[in-house]
Amino acid sequence: MTERSVIDCLVAPKSVAIIGASDNPSRIGGRPIAAMLTAGYKGRILPVNPKRDSVQGLPCYASVDDLPEVPEAALIAVPAALVPKTIEELGRKGCKAATLFSAGFAETGAEGEAAQSALVALAQSHGMRLLGPNTLGVYNVDIGYYGTFSSSLDTGYPRPGNIGIASQSGAFGAHLGALARDRGLGCSVLFTTGNEADITVAEAIRWMAESDSIDVICTYMEAVNDAPAMLAALDVARAAGKPVLALKSGRSVVGAKAAASHTASLTGDAVVADAVLSDHGAIILRDPESMMDIAYAASKKVLPTRHSLGVVTISGGAGIVICDEAERIGLPMPPMPQTAQDRLLEALPYASAENPLDCTAQALNEPDLLQLFTRAGLEEGGYGAVLCFLTYVAGSDKLSDVILKAMAPLRAAYPDRIIAFCALGAPEVMERYDEAGILIFNDPCRAVRAIDAVLRLGAAKASGPRKTLPAPAPISLPASSPDEAGAKSLLAEAGITAAPERAVQSADEAVTAAAEIGFPVVMKILSPDILHKSDIGAVKLNLQDENSVRAAHAEILAAAVTHAPKAQISGVLVARQLSGGVECLMGINRDPTFGPVAVFGLGGIFVELLNDVALQACPFGPDTAREMILSIRGAAILQGARGTEPADIDALADMLSRLSIFAAGAGDRLTSVDLNPVLAMPKGQGAYALDAVIELEPAKGGA
Amino acid sequence: MTERSVIDCLVAPKSVAIIGASDNPSRIGGRPIAAMLTAGYKGRILPVNPKRDSVQGLPCYASVDDLPEVPEAALIAVPAALVPKTIEELGRKGCKAATLFSAGFAETGAEGEAAQSALVALAQSHGMRLLGPNTLGVYNVDIGYYGTFSSSLDTGYPRPGNIGIASQSGAFGAHLGALARDRGLGCSVLFTTGNEADITVAEAIRWMAESDSIDVICTYMEAVNDAPAMLAALDVARAAGKPVLALKSGRSVVGAKAAASHTASLTGDAVVADAVLSDHGAIILRDPESMMDIAYAASKKVLPTRHSLGVVTISGGAGIVICDEAERIGLPMPPMPQTAQDRLLEALPYASAENPLDCTAQALNEPDLLQLFTRAGLEEGGYGAVLCFLTYVAGSDKLSDVILKAMAPLRAAYPDRIIAFCALGAPEVMERYDEAGILIFNDPCRAVRAIDAVLRLGAAKASGPRKTLPAPAPISLPASSPDEAGAKSLLAEAGITAAPERAVQSADEAVTAAAEIGFPVVMKILSPDILHKSDIGAVKLNLQDENSVRAAHAEILAAAVTHAPKAQISGVLVARQLSGGVECLMGINRDPTFGPVAVFGLGGIFVELLNDVALQACPFGPDTAREMILSIRGAAILQGARGTEPADIDALADMLSRLSIFAAGAGDRLTSVDLNPVLAMPKGQGAYALDAVIELEPAKGGA
Repeated sequence: MTERSVIDCLVAPKSVAIIGASDNPSRIGGRPIAAMLTAGYKGRILPVNPKRDSVQGLPCYASVDDLPEVPEAALIAVPAALVPKTIEELGRKGCKAATLFSAGFAETGAEGEAAQSALVALAQSHGMRLLGPNTLGVYNVDIGYYGTFSSSLDTGYPRPGNIGIASQSGAFGAHLGALARDRGLGCSVLFTTGNEADITVAEAIRWMAESDSIDVICTYMEAVNDAPAMLAALDVARAAGKPVLALKSGRSVVGAKAAASHTASLTGDAVVADAVLSDHGAIILRDPESMMDIAYAASKKVLPTRHSLGVVTISGGAGIVICDEAERIGLPMPPMPQTAQDRLLEALPYASAENPLDCTAQALNEPDLLQLFTRAGLEEGGYGAVLCFLTYVAGSDKLSDVILKAMAPLRAAYPDRIIAFCALGAPEVMERYDEAGILIFNDPCRAVRAIDAVLRLGAAKASGPRKTLPAPAPISLPASSPDEAGAKSLLAEAGITAAPERAVQSADEAVTAAAEIGFPVVMKILSPDILHKSDIGAVKLNLQDENSVRAAHAEILAAAVTHAPKAQISGVLVARQLSGGVECLMGINRDPTFGPVAVFGLGGIFVELLNDVALQACPFGPDTAREMILSIRGAAILQGARGTEPADIDALADMLSRLSIFAAGAGDRLTSVDLNPVLAMPKGQGAYALDAVIELEPAKGGA
Repeated sequence: MTERSVIDCLVAPKSVAIIGASDNPSRIGGRPIAAMLTAGYKGRILPVNPKRDSVQGLPCYASVDDLPEVPEAALIAVPAALVPKTIEELGRKGCKAATLFSAGFAETGAEGEAAQSALVALAQSHGMRLLGPNTLGVYNVDIGYYGTFSSSLDTGYPRPGNIGIASQSGAFGAHLGALARDRGLGCSVLFTTGNEADITVAEAIRWMAESDSIDVICTYMEAVNDAPAMLAALDVARAAGKPVLALKSGRSVVGAKAAASHTASLTGDAVVADAVLSDHGAIILRDPESMMDIAYAASKKVLPTRHSLGVVTISGGAGIVICDEAERIGLPMPPMPQTAQDRLLEALPYASAENPLDCTAQALNEPDLLQLFTRAGLEEGGYGAVLCFLTYVAGSDKLSDVILKAMAPLRAAYPDRIIAFCALGAPEVMERYDEAGILIFNDPCRAVRAIDAVLRLGAAKASGPRKTLPAPAPISLPASSPDEAGAKSLLAEAGITAAPERAVQSADEAVTAAAEIGFPVVMKILSPDILHKSDIGAVKLNLQDENSVRAAHAEILAAAVTHAPKAQISGVLVARQLSGGVECLMGINRDPTFGPVAVFGLGGIFVELLNDVALQACPFGPDTAREMILSIRGAAILQGARGTEPADIDALADMLSRLSIFAAGAGDRLTSVDLNPVLAMPKGQGAYALDAVIELEPAKGGA
């Protein structure tokens, strides 16, 4: 039995045993049975309770041993103390998938945690997988399976459909399910994973990503308990073109953390998780409402490739409100081509035809105008989505027929675009539009945000699979954290220009080095015995040519001999004289969940006060590094915003990518890397790490 | 007839004439009549149409002259060409308040604008006020008055209640009305002001602020057409404790403007309007949904004075989501006192009792727990609002009785606090909670935002009326823009330390000046004939004491005599040697709507890239200036965030306030003031404008 089919058993079992079955349909052991009987579960329900012969009209078995067959799934609704015995019995019977409703494990402290670990070990010894403990369970509307005791069913059953939910929190997952139901959204599957002693939301997400019946995946998470599985699941979903909408909570603690000013604390958990999960295609959300808005829009499976919005409105005011929101969130609203504008203005002289297209209240009298303007937006405007603000007008029974008729040929002609209405009215009327393939929103700004998310999904899908790098070769590290020179030398091996400098032993070597490094250069004596090099004239700045370098080499050695005759001289250092660059910082922090994460920011207030950094899990290529660099708010400074020359972003991106590959190759002992500052020189002149700190965990078993 | 009673006539007329009355209830001239007949308008409907004897069953009059009485209000539904004649007739008849549905005026261009101005003049000649043209009209549910042709009534009539709406846009105003209706909110009054040829939303807002029946005022604006009236109306509303929720659109154009990097463009219209309207107590919103959420919450007239949130939840997950949102928007969630926590944990050991208070699903079995935890939040927590996350549980018919019973004593005992539920369920069930004084929200994050807005209103109300300064004395300005010296001298008269410097004629004077200015000082020769003062030794830096100043004075004069024997010497300048300060900028821009507006920001990237500025209409006192200064994102730098000494914020605030008073006194000829940089010295050491530019419009009638 493969992993996947265990989840199949959990969410779509052919038979289910309920251990601790109750005749009372409002008890934990009774609710699932009552719900399955109500919903017409297509499998076999096998109640187990030593005290009863029948439960809710079904024959009841005294023990697991007495069951007439091996159940594909088991629901365990017994007190915590009886759970181990139950697992043992189920294991012996051959059941491979158990859902543990029972609470009183890891959530209660150390003792409970130990008991929970023992449960997992016990189950594993029988090849059994566990959902929970402390879970609200699973449901699957398509087959009427309700392996859950959620009281959300008291206020109505979910509606079948291609949305699925996986939630660590039972109550919040059920809230999402009820929210979908109350909005009329079809959501066939809900997983709640509780304590995640064994099965995590990652496996649920993957199951949905591979399922034929689920197209949109919603998930609520507090922690990512199995990062590799989660990222793999996201990659599967992305490859399948299925959006994953993730409400990841617990960011407010991080808000405080992020206020700290050094790079080590910039990669607080939630921020890292946002970056990593987004990179793997998840849409990170903060509230259930936007999750439902986007799930609704995405469930129609129309993911246009163009990230642009056209607006048709009967209210100039609403058009402006929509523009404001679109600009705020970065959804482009390009103007219509001039020829199309002219044509529309001919048809309706007092219209606005640029975008938004204001066809005025006149469209109520001449619904053909609505068709004309909307068609123009789709055809000549070429917008990924056209949003029509029709308010209560679309809610009128009389007009809705006319509007539907006007829209039908457009819906047919542009199947790959979003057509959406902002409309108010009776649910029945709204449902008719929805069935005709028109997205319906009540609020224009929520419409803009949901459409934007779906257009971004479409654009991401069109851009192909996520770029990945092969796992880099392992890097051999010293036994303990190196000093600056050691750090620079390690990084230099990784191709990171930690300092554009070279030690030379002769004037000829100095000239060659300077030529290769590039003028102007600075030269200084290399000697462990001379501390105040400048004071004795053993540092020469701003050397512009070969002759100056030769002269400086002689003068520096002479000065050393004169002022420190006994000093040991190991040579002369030739270094590029750097000026005019932009100070940046780069670093690596090992995140406990996601491993090495690279951080990039500008020096000074951008990091210290504004926390303006980009994060990315390692390793990644220069293209990704470039996107990171350009994503920070202060990127304009690197692009020459303040009248300075544009910086060498290519060189920065190359360095950042190399750093990420170094970090991935360095393995678990690498705690952090801090390159601060990195000087980004003007375009074409490179980027240089002026300081480097590498922190390592001590090697096990000595150097 | 006073102004106010004209608006009374418009919105609550005892009789209304419809000029261009139609028997067809779907025509513009027929809709208001049909609606009033349906709604049982309490006044007299007087149709005017020369072609009919009766209209919709009512006697119809051939002309205005034929009307049996002077109508308090008139609705004009005739083509644009016939409007002047109609106004003339109504004026002659003695009607004082006309609503012009007719379009085809200012919105169509210059010709229409001229026609519109002529209409206003004509009306004024009869002492008549106009609403519109191009307006959708007004309604007043309380008396069944529908002076509107809005088709929103086709999908249902509004519900009476203490919310009122004033909108420049007809269609968008009607959308807001329909939105309120569909949400079950009571909204008795809708004004739409169309082209605002005469009556503006400001007058509508003021009428509502003074009305006994309206408690919450919603407004949609694209432009503030009468700023003094608007600000006065907001002040009246604030004094009456009535929130004004303002959706001000048109900010996206400003987004582009704000990208420009000099101070003149930082005060783009929408940004200025936000600042000025907020300062007068308006809550600025971007979307209709948040307007309705806040209007709903505020309509209960419970405005707690404490800006803090307690959360009671049956889902730990939801508690975290709520915390995240509260922190994001700055709504404090302080922890419960330890004694209260201990008590709650005794009652429910696995609860969380800090805040959020997680009473777990156990609260479903023991509803007393819900009461216990909520009471603790109100009593010991002392929170301004307690939000209970109850999701579908609260929607259960069975449980709702129990929950209502548990809440009733709390609602009674804490009438000055907000108790809110996040709940899903049938509208009937939700309405029962609502009627019991519990705010109901579907989404936890929307609940947090609406509660925050109402708590802020409460805190603002508690802080008393808006601080105002008396109008400053007029300042006499030069005939044209002054040079830097002239600007500094003008500002010096206003008490603004444009530069800490003084011209002296002797060593004794220099010593006195230095002592007063404060050491260290810099001294330089004052001579129009010596350009390169440093080169000849006529500048002395970093003078620390009296002796150095005496010596420097002698040396400077000697150097001047030696190197430039023919130069005209007007004295020696003694200036404070400034270092270690923070560079800021201050300025004034004359906004076409709101007059002089002060801007404050930090120098460098904070303004240039981040547009991090605070704005305030002039004049204002040092307290307000201080709030402005501390409101910018970079304020931490002034407070010593980067390891530097805290800056002299008192001195900055004093300067900014003086600048605002100067600007207000300078009158309309002052176009702008730019003090850039202003150096904020360490605390206690002052703030100095190192450069000053004042732009004036040329004086009329010559110098």
